[in-house]
Amino acid sequence: MVTIKDIAQKTGVTATTVSRVINNRGYISDATREKVWKAIEEMHYRPNEVARQLARQHTDTIGIIVPHISHPYFAKLISNLEYAATRHHYKILLCNSREEPEKEAEYLEMCIANKVSGIVLCSKYLQAEKFRFLDIPIINLERMDERKDIITIQSDNYEGGRLAAQHLIDKGCRSLLHFGGVAGKNMPADRRADGFRDVCLQKGVSNVILQSDQKDFESLQYQDHIRKSLEKNPAVDGIFASSDLIALQVIQVCSQMKIEIPAQMKLIGFDDVGISSMATPAITTIHQPIREMSELSIEYIDKKLRGETVPLNVYMPVRLIERDST
Amino acid sequence: MVTIKDIAQKTGVTATTVSRVINNRGYISDATREKVWKAIEEMHYRPNEVARQLARQHTDTIGIIVPHISHPYFAKLISNLEYAATRHHYKILLCNSREEPEKEAEYLEMCIANKVSGIVLCSKYLQAEKFRFLDIPIINLERMDERKDIITIQSDNYEGGRLAAQHLIDKGCRSLLHFGGVAGKNMPADRRADGFRDVCLQKGVSNVILQSDQKDFESLQYQDHIRKSLEKNPAVDGIFASSDLIALQVIQVCSQMKIEIPAQMKLIGFDDVGISSMATPAITTIHQPIREMSELSIEYIDKKLRGETVPLNVYMPVRLIERDST
Repeated sequence: MVTIKDIAQKTGVTATTVSRVINNRGYISDATREKVWKAIEEMHYRPNEVARQLARQHTDTIGIIVPHISHPYFAKLISNLEYAATRHHYKILLCNSREEPEKEAEYLEMCIANKVSGIVLCSKYLQAEKFRFLDIPIINLERMDERKDIITIQSDNYEGGRLAAQHLIDKGCRSLLHFGGVAGKNMPADRRADGFRDVCLQKGVSNVILQSDQKDFESLQYQDHIRKSLEKNPAVDGIFASSDLIALQVIQVCSQMKIEIPAQMKLIGFDDVGISSMATPAITTIHQPIREMSELSIEYIDKKLRGETVPLNVYMPVRLIERDST
Repeated sequence: MVTIKDIAQKTGVTATTVSRVINNRGYISDATREKVWKAIEEMHYRPNEVARQLARQHTDTIGIIVPHISHPYFAKLISNLEYAATRHHYKILLCNSREEPEKEAEYLEMCIANKVSGIVLCSKYLQAEKFRFLDIPIINLERMDERKDIITIQSDNYEGGRLAAQHLIDKGCRSLLHFGGVAGKNMPADRRADGFRDVCLQKGVSNVILQSDQKDFESLQYQDHIRKSLEKNPAVDGIFASSDLIALQVIQVCSQMKIEIPAQMKLIGFDDVGISSMATPAITTIHQPIREMSELSIEYIDKKLRGETVPLNVYMPVRLIERDST
């Protein structure tokens, strides 16, 4: 690796002069300036960003800790976070916790040791006390914490559940089923079930709320869970799935059970990721503003670093997108 | 941020002693050792990984440059690369080039300035001469280059095309269509069309090979392209799509055109990502060994850094996975 010293040696000036030319500081004659730049070009010198980061005490890198990379929701989220980060001149350090508490803790330590500028947390198990003595801005994205002083950005999950139940009832369904999140985790997404239940109670519509288990979430394979649930609840004529990925598998299981969607069964997903519009039938879903939530996450980290005050709790609006499955 | 000096001050020993305790070097009395560790705990000291990286001249970070993050193929690839990197104690710096040449060049500069340990390139436009003077190991993953001295890992795309055509013909198809990659890019994936064409010619089966345009690839929306192609080629009874994502949309367009899969139309995808098994009908596909290709990419970077000799060109085997769409 070529250093400033090598450039100095080659051009016969001091390292300080080379540094001045690069940083455009102090008086340098045109001849020297030209000579130094020519050597920089010829010797393929590249400034050492790591050294600069050391001087600056942070690295313009934002750590993103997710429980899954290939899940369509997180893939879309990562894509949008990367886009927003680039616009704000940050790089992305991507960490997949796989929902393993030790792995999450390890990643967090790694982010801190590497002096990231901020962290976007989408993974559940991280112990809040780990952050207590840190100066790094942290964003909880669709994630709750016992600590109340961490910026939290979430979509209006309760309203999403309400919209889904209301739409299924409007379409004539009288026995609803909700495939909810992972049992025992207390995530913001669990509020979808609350909104769903409240509308059903209000309208006197029978409803079943099922949670999935950690194993299904890890493997992204919900078919067995869906099949057993439908066999156990044969009267169900409307399903609200807590992700488009689950909804895609509901279509498959219904097809195998000769249940026609939307004629015999209406179906709504959640997230509005690419597959919802590409499925057959195209999936009615609750749109989560992933782009805007990603943009805010990066913006808030950036503002916090500049000492500005940012909101502590943000709820983003959701909306129903009607397609062919209802 | 707490430094070694702060620990030294608090414990009344020198900074060198603190450093020795942390790095377990030289003789230190048990009393001093205990005192220093206690202060480290109490003051929440964290070693500065950036400073260590500066000393080491690289950062244990691997840059990944992809043209898409949320495309299921790249999402699965990133997920597997991250997993392999973690096993080898590397971190992932994720860059989405969006197939913009300037953005790719910018990301590459950024990776270099940040002293990454290696780069996995999955994006097309990067100019080879940019790397010419670099010591950093680079892996071309499913990507070709004019430069012949860069490690290239690809799946046996030609064989994949052959397997697809052979399977469709075995299933009774007599007029085949291939939805290929983006026109004018000369990617390894284009070899799928060659294998497909060769089998069709050999068996005397009529075949049409269509390329998609950059816009469709960027938006991941192929429906219009598929619809127009099927209207223009009404005799087609077998389709080989160059990704499962395209195959998913073929199912939708066929459903809208009242063409039954597999009764009237047989369909094969490529990649074997999650959606292929979750679609209705589940999609027959060519399995690409994404996990193994990711593992090799990281392993080769690691070996190159340790001065070991690694293969220059690797072709990974593919295999047919038969599901309901044929």
